[in-house]
Amino acid sequence: MGVNSNRVEDFPAGACHETTVKITAESLPPLEIHEVCLPPNKTTFQTLKHRLSEIFFPDDPLHRFKNQSPSVKLVLGLQYFFPIFQWGTNYSLRLIKSDIISGLTIASLAIPQGISYAKLANLPPIIGLYSSFVPPLIYAVLGSSRHLAVGPVSIASLVMGSMLGESVSHTEEPILYLKLAFTATFFSGLFQASLGLLRLGFIIDFLSKATLLGFMAGAAVIVSLQQLKGLFGIVHFTNKMQIIPVMSSVFYHREEWSWQTIVMGLSFLIFLLTTRHISIRKPKLFWVSAAAPLTSVILSTILVFAFKAHVHGISTIGHLQKGLNPPSANMLYVQGPYLGLAIKTGIITGILSLTEGIAVGRTFASLRNYQVDGNKEMMAIGLMNIVGSCSSCFVTSGSFSRSAVNYNAGAQTAVSNIIMAATVLVTLLFLMPLFTYTPSLVLGAIIITAVIGLIDYRAAYRLWKVDRLDFFACMCAFFGVLFISVQIGLAIAVGVSIFKILLHVTRPNTVVLGNIPGTEIYQNLRCYREALRVPSFLILGIESPIFFANSTYLQERILRWVREEEDRIQENKESTLKCIILDMTAVTAIDTSGIEAINELRKTLKKRSLQLVLANPVGDVMEKLHRSKTLQSFELNGLYLSVGEAVADISSLFKAQP
Amino acid sequence: MGVNSNRVEDFPAGACHETTVKITAESLPPLEIHEVCLPPNKTTFQTLKHRLSEIFFPDDPLHRFKNQSPSVKLVLGLQYFFPIFQWGTNYSLRLIKSDIISGLTIASLAIPQGISYAKLANLPPIIGLYSSFVPPLIYAVLGSSRHLAVGPVSIASLVMGSMLGESVSHTEEPILYLKLAFTATFFSGLFQASLGLLRLGFIIDFLSKATLLGFMAGAAVIVSLQQLKGLFGIVHFTNKMQIIPVMSSVFYHREEWSWQTIVMGLSFLIFLLTTRHISIRKPKLFWVSAAAPLTSVILSTILVFAFKAHVHGISTIGHLQKGLNPPSANMLYVQGPYLGLAIKTGIITGILSLTEGIAVGRTFASLRNYQVDGNKEMMAIGLMNIVGSCSSCFVTSGSFSRSAVNYNAGAQTAVSNIIMAATVLVTLLFLMPLFTYTPSLVLGAIIITAVIGLIDYRAAYRLWKVDRLDFFACMCAFFGVLFISVQIGLAIAVGVSIFKILLHVTRPNTVVLGNIPGTEIYQNLRCYREALRVPSFLILGIESPIFFANSTYLQERILRWVREEEDRIQENKESTLKCIILDMTAVTAIDTSGIEAINELRKTLKKRSLQLVLANPVGDVMEKLHRSKTLQSFELNGLYLSVGEAVADISSLFKAQP
Repeated sequence: MGVNSNRVEDFPAGACHETTVKITAESLPPLEIHEVCLPPNKTTFQTLKHRLSEIFFPDDPLHRFKNQSPSVKLVLGLQYFFPIFQWGTNYSLRLIKSDIISGLTIASLAIPQGISYAKLANLPPIIGLYSSFVPPLIYAVLGSSRHLAVGPVSIASLVMGSMLGESVSHTEEPILYLKLAFTATFFSGLFQASLGLLRLGFIIDFLSKATLLGFMAGAAVIVSLQQLKGLFGIVHFTNKMQIIPVMSSVFYHREEWSWQTIVMGLSFLIFLLTTRHISIRKPKLFWVSAAAPLTSVILSTILVFAFKAHVHGISTIGHLQKGLNPPSANMLYVQGPYLGLAIKTGIITGILSLTEGIAVGRTFASLRNYQVDGNKEMMAIGLMNIVGSCSSCFVTSGSFSRSAVNYNAGAQTAVSNIIMAATVLVTLLFLMPLFTYTPSLVLGAIIITAVIGLIDYRAAYRLWKVDRLDFFACMCAFFGVLFISVQIGLAIAVGVSIFKILLHVTRPNTVVLGNIPGTEIYQNLRCYREALRVPSFLILGIESPIFFANSTYLQERILRWVREEEDRIQENKESTLKCIILDMTAVTAIDTSGIEAINELRKTLKKRSLQLVLANPVGDVMEKLHRSKTLQSFELNGLYLSVGEAVADISSLFKAQP
Repeated sequence: MGVNSNRVEDFPAGACHETTVKITAESLPPLEIHEVCLPPNKTTFQTLKHRLSEIFFPDDPLHRFKNQSPSVKLVLGLQYFFPIFQWGTNYSLRLIKSDIISGLTIASLAIPQGISYAKLANLPPIIGLYSSFVPPLIYAVLGSSRHLAVGPVSIASLVMGSMLGESVSHTEEPILYLKLAFTATFFSGLFQASLGLLRLGFIIDFLSKATLLGFMAGAAVIVSLQQLKGLFGIVHFTNKMQIIPVMSSVFYHREEWSWQTIVMGLSFLIFLLTTRHISIRKPKLFWVSAAAPLTSVILSTILVFAFKAHVHGISTIGHLQKGLNPPSANMLYVQGPYLGLAIKTGIITGILSLTEGIAVGRTFASLRNYQVDGNKEMMAIGLMNIVGSCSSCFVTSGSFSRSAVNYNAGAQTAVSNIIMAATVLVTLLFLMPLFTYTPSLVLGAIIITAVIGLIDYRAAYRLWKVDRLDFFACMCAFFGVLFISVQIGLAIAVGVSIFKILLHVTRPNTVVLGNIPGTEIYQNLRCYREALRVPSFLILGIESPIFFANSTYLQERILRWVREEEDRIQENKESTLKCIILDMTAVTAIDTSGIEAINELRKTLKKRSLQLVLANPVGDVMEKLHRSKTLQSFELNGLYLSVGEAVADISSLFKAQP
């Protein structure tokens, strides 16, 4: 047999033997039986290196640098850390037009949303504007997504408000609350940047989409209900985040409901929801919903000013200070009883905002067929939050709704973020007095319209159709957030997701395989009606790695299959069972408990004069079976490259020695 | 094609189509391509029922009851809950001789060990004897192992002493401490019995053997070092369980070292270790080590009495009350500040003693080729502890060392436990005054000899050889116990084991497959030097279910494989890549994130004019792909039953349309 010139790698001779050809008593042509090979020898160091590189560098980030001159490497390195050098060099005036249009569009959305989300986090409204100015500039330099619109996001704002509000009241101790918010933002950024730097980005993968779906829907319901405070003009309202206290707050203070506020609030809510509906129906009309919030703010401000409605009990934002972000590094809370709270809040909001930012970045990248590097994005978002925390910003990330508008408005590069920041700059410097008469109710309507899209019942229905366990995880997150708390809802959902993995590993499938006539294919008898049992053989497919968590179960389950097969054979008076073949194709790993289980099983079956045969163990499993000297305990005919070869060889032996 | 009469189950027609025969342009004989089938339709309820029965009843405990008359069912039911009715009916005088010999042997071991382990748990010595009387009787009725010797066990005693001792001092508040010990025993039994009743036995599978190895070795080291207190005659000794305070206690109080105690203690320790060594070398001489502890107790008592050594500072057990177990149900601590502690201690000692008991039972059952039902054993051990807690016993289980002696001494049934209990009864009623002069040092020597066998460095070396990650988990448990605490060591070890599973799922292997010439077998190119790449194809084996935790990784990794393959092709100037085949054999499950990843991948590859083909998706995966309407988005040639058929069919298409 010719040696294959395409092989990936050389490996020491002797690890694999040549094909052996057996000529058996009755079968013609001779059976060609292929020996099962061990993977090439590797030292512990090589194995460790390979494993670590798969864990931390699965995307091989340095592949561009291979075989390049030092100067090219320098340029590539700069481009790697500052993507602006990558797209900036090709930037042309042709692109700037689209970027200006999209930048202005998202600015008109970002200004009212910024103010609203700051309110959601119990922070002064101006912090929301500050947070729409500095972070987008940082992201434009460091970020690798071309469509991400950066600024405050609803979920992270909500969670920050909820977590900090549990311990510190924003009305009684506003300065401490503000300090804690900046500190949480700092730790959130630090955590995000470290995840990226240490290439631990896969941690956010543990928030499955199903979990997030339920979590976000729950948060959206809570947030929307909380806005009833503004929409109904209620003054005394709970600080809690569960559905029961919020709803009882709404109905307990019925005497505070103000009909003027309700009428005005509902009108704007209906207006905003209608524009949202139009834009969803016709994506070309994206500007309708994009312009609506600013229009509502302007209209409502004019109305309040014209009718002097603020004296009739409609609450307004009030005076906002002109000027750019003041530095806030001196406001970071570095020691004291609340430091733990700030760190915890930072980490949780950090994970949540990162998940949203990266998911959004990836979505639009895949639409335009470019790559977003998760670990790099984490560093960009992290640095943006660290800098933000020192310049009076709270947690920011890429917002889904604004990024969608950005994309639809034709954004080409991160320049649209710069244009947005410039617009916010102009607002901060000159337009602040205009917000004095803006009513709070319009902010409530803007928040509801923004978060209502997070309740994606169609996706939940799809989960139900496709995967019941995913749906269950989703519902756990949803009801956990609604009835217990935002953090615990999240924790439950992550727990359910991990439990699902462990359950799959603890109780793996085992299936009986049969031969599809005329082929070498062995398939599940329950699925394939043409598949046939092979007399005297029981062929079992093990559909999972064999770990300590399932080794006992698998041992018992296999013995039960054998017992059931023997009962069936007795009933149908077929030829007796002689050989159990385990198809190990899907056993992608094994640990020491698993090896012990295989050994036990072999011994138990041998006592009942049944032969145990392993078919197609993968490389890693072979290596461990070899190292644990299990291979030696299997007899000559105990290991085959495929089920087909095992059946052919062993049944020819049966014929030879009846 | 004839319909197979051996099929497992009927399923609705239409789920699977007949084999299609394609006659392609150039290939002769015609290619026979088999369609991939969907598994038979199941309702949600059927799926749920199947899943739950696999989780909770994998061993199908009711299979004996099928097709039996009601009276037989009653007998079988009685035998199921009280195994004594099973073996009791066949019990003969021939067996009783062996049972008496083995029962007396383990009694001679159980009496000194009982006293010693009570000391380990900081309990009065007599509690150890009480615990060797009632529990073995209960187990003899309910237990299904024939060789388990029941009584106090070292690890559980140690953990109980360590956990309770952290909050309550056994010298200052002995009554409260005793109450808490009985309460912990009660909860331990309740927890064990509920695990069995709810068939949640698989929870103990999460303590892998590697973890337990490290944990037990660490505990053995700590326990042995603590015995230096008795062996050196030190009076002021730490209550802590970490290595550093224990060792500093030993050397800090050097002035308390008593040479008489040290000489006597070391002599007995050497004697016991020598007998242990002899019995290990020659298993037939098991009685040498079995008789040694009682011999040492008798010898040392005589020595102390003869030389009046107790007045020379050798501490003795002192006066023990004659009589049977007093009832202690009134001493259960049902409310108060320490209830949480008692429950926690109960659960942890419960898990540990259960793990030991079941592992020991299974070991000897497999040597004699009978089955031990895990869930039934849990109920037996649990009830034994509940009853024990009401009759002045602390946590008991099956002890490894005594069971081994029992087995070697020829025990045939649980009658040996009854004989042992009878011997303890005689001791309790008549022989208690004899222990008055027994020195504490001999108990220390007995404990060291008993636990030293738990330090199994050979097994640890085997772990190192076979599986480095298992070795790492083992070391984490070992050093965690030594340097932090018993509970945290255990928690770390369980954490490492679960992390190992998650790591395998998060970063699964992907391998490039090649064809082994002359066969339909496709194997890893790195392992099989005879395997050949198929031109224009990239065949990837995915070695894991596709879950939310790895869907992003797999997507990126597959794109990297494609990139690397394209680079390689360019370098070698081979024919261009046209088709990516994913071998899904080992993808035993998929969730909604996984499905999305497959869809994204298909779209991304399509943009690069590459075709994505799935080969051999298993039933569950097919079902989900179908339900999520992903199958429809794959074109006509997107799904095959095996890699071989995919390559054959698609390459014939390539030839037809070049």
